[in-house]
Amino acid sequence: MQRSTNLNPSKLAMVPFVSVDDMMKIVNTIGAAKIIAEIADYIEADFLRWEKFDKTPRVAAHSKEGVIELMPTSDGETYGFKYVNGHPANMARGFQTVSAFGVLARVDNGYPVLFSEMTILTALRTAATSAVVAKHLAPKKSKTMAMIGNGAQCEFQALAFKEIIGIETVRLYDIDPTATQKAVRNLAQSGLTVIACASAQDAVTGADIITTCTADKQCATILTDNMIGAGVHINAIGGDCPGKTELHKDILLRSDIFVEYPPQTRIEGEIQQLDEDHPVTKLWEVMAGRAAGRTSDRQITLFDSVGFATEDFSALRYIHDQLERTGHFVKLDLLADPDDPRDLFGMVQRAAGPLAGS
Amino acid sequence: MQRSTNLNPSKLAMVPFVSVDDMMKIVNTIGAAKIIAEIADYIEADFLRWEKFDKTPRVAAHSKEGVIELMPTSDGETYGFKYVNGHPANMARGFQTVSAFGVLARVDNGYPVLFSEMTILTALRTAATSAVVAKHLAPKKSKTMAMIGNGAQCEFQALAFKEIIGIETVRLYDIDPTATQKAVRNLAQSGLTVIACASAQDAVTGADIITTCTADKQCATILTDNMIGAGVHINAIGGDCPGKTELHKDILLRSDIFVEYPPQTRIEGEIQQLDEDHPVTKLWEVMAGRAAGRTSDRQITLFDSVGFATEDFSALRYIHDQLERTGHFVKLDLLADPDDPRDLFGMVQRAAGPLAGS
Repeated sequence: MQRSTNLNPSKLAMVPFVSVDDMMKIVNTIGAAKIIAEIADYIEADFLRWEKFDKTPRVAAHSKEGVIELMPTSDGETYGFKYVNGHPANMARGFQTVSAFGVLARVDNGYPVLFSEMTILTALRTAATSAVVAKHLAPKKSKTMAMIGNGAQCEFQALAFKEIIGIETVRLYDIDPTATQKAVRNLAQSGLTVIACASAQDAVTGADIITTCTADKQCATILTDNMIGAGVHINAIGGDCPGKTELHKDILLRSDIFVEYPPQTRIEGEIQQLDEDHPVTKLWEVMAGRAAGRTSDRQITLFDSVGFATEDFSALRYIHDQLERTGHFVKLDLLADPDDPRDLFGMVQRAAGPLAGS
Repeated sequence: MQRSTNLNPSKLAMVPFVSVDDMMKIVNTIGAAKIIAEIADYIEADFLRWEKFDKTPRVAAHSKEGVIELMPTSDGETYGFKYVNGHPANMARGFQTVSAFGVLARVDNGYPVLFSEMTILTALRTAATSAVVAKHLAPKKSKTMAMIGNGAQCEFQALAFKEIIGIETVRLYDIDPTATQKAVRNLAQSGLTVIACASAQDAVTGADIITTCTADKQCATILTDNMIGAGVHINAIGGDCPGKTELHKDILLRSDIFVEYPPQTRIEGEIQQLDEDHPVTKLWEVMAGRAAGRTSDRQITLFDSVGFATEDFSALRYIHDQLERTGHFVKLDLLADPDDPRDLFGMVQRAAGPLAGS
């Protein structure tokens, strides 16, 4: 059944591909809130075996319009990477600010086993990661979350915090009221109480958790120091590349800061505003019980989220495990696979047919 | 025509995909020798604008079985990367030693514009690069090439040197005679005189150019010093990762050495055997007339080839330019593209249909 004697691609040549349409079907089959919770379990499981992973800051190609990044990692058996762009000006031109795709492959032979859209999957895993982290850092019995920035990530965050943390009310604010209206509409049947607020100050009033998720590629100040009371958990999603931050430095100085992978967060996160040796705590150590999370009711905890390769790996691993369960994929003829691996040229030559010359 | 009002993917969502089958059709439509020559022109054109490219050593994940690498680059307008594995033990298990795929994307918005198989394309571009380099370094009127190692790359090299350099005779040797027999068979209608040799020593006799292309992941000595006479050009393909070399160090010390990108070749090439400051010449400078290539009849020139990201970029750029000409591609639904870029969640939700709950 191999290609050099039969022109149909061999089994080895075929890689499962999850398209955008497939991913939407997977999400809708399982349910958005449930899939986020299931991905969260994979993310937490991989954080708990953190030391098994090859870790490296992502490889970024910056331009004046944005950034294109490759995010590889491996647990020794499986290799994964994500391609992702971040272009803040895209939205105004009708493109996604962030779009992505990813690959899982076998370490032992280098062959890909999954190729998947990751624009939707990144939104799911980012929300799942935020909620997993909040499990360890947010005040017990948090019921209200403020959300500053109501773009593409907003509803996924709201569902994640409802499902995993038990949030009952979200207080939304965006500089563009139509973004807030969109989120209100999309969350109408979510079971959450959704309140559209007229200002960031209004949104944070009474909130146990504050999520910031804005997309300007510049140092912005979405939250100022006087807006942050004692005891809250800040889930800072939007500051995720050099020169792009959301929080006033004074907030950082009052907070206990938790990060995914310090070498990457120092470059990309809110803490790029601080000294290089400013103390931060690694999240995997909190999850593994090796470092303290929240220790008092008055403490301000800050998750300086930038997104790390292991989270994408976890999400791809989850999707790979759903292929048989859902059947939502097609197979792509991606890998050349001649009968004799050395006979790549002969395979190409024979594909021309018996009558073709050289 | 966008996804949120019409469930068919929008044009923006679709990325052209060149499968293995498509790539074979493209090669056979254009002709293997001709396509190598055309890719060679793209490679040389990109070497001539070398300073425009973002360059970085590839990002490698090493394991005991092999390596998986990502090779990104950008010319400021277009971004490209290749995923490629190298697993020397794969062949014995029925897998390709090297398999690959790649992507081109727009720098201004980060959207991919091509996803392509690159196992066959890498073979084409590697051969094209070798021949482009030999144009500048090999003895004038070279007619005979020795080829040590007759694996997957062999016939592509033979065709490239016939088409671009005017080689008339290839002298083949492999430690496995069945590999040589395969190459002899595949080159039967190539127009080349093909001679199967009983030893590497026999193969190099009378050769103007010596191509080494073996795949052991270890320091091997395919060529020893006494086998190399004055005036030859050595095209060393196989030594391309740490701990993997093909030539005796004494040959290197007698040669003028030419490389693609010194920071990568120092890690991966034959010159990993030499001091870190051993002089090497950059190929782009030779092509641009800024550095000397071959300067005497007795000089031994050595292309220490490891393969660089710009060559893959050139090959992808070439294939992208052939899409309309050949029509051999399909479109993949790879990019989520809601009407309102901020309404990713709404797009997923609406895909469930009007009667679905949240």
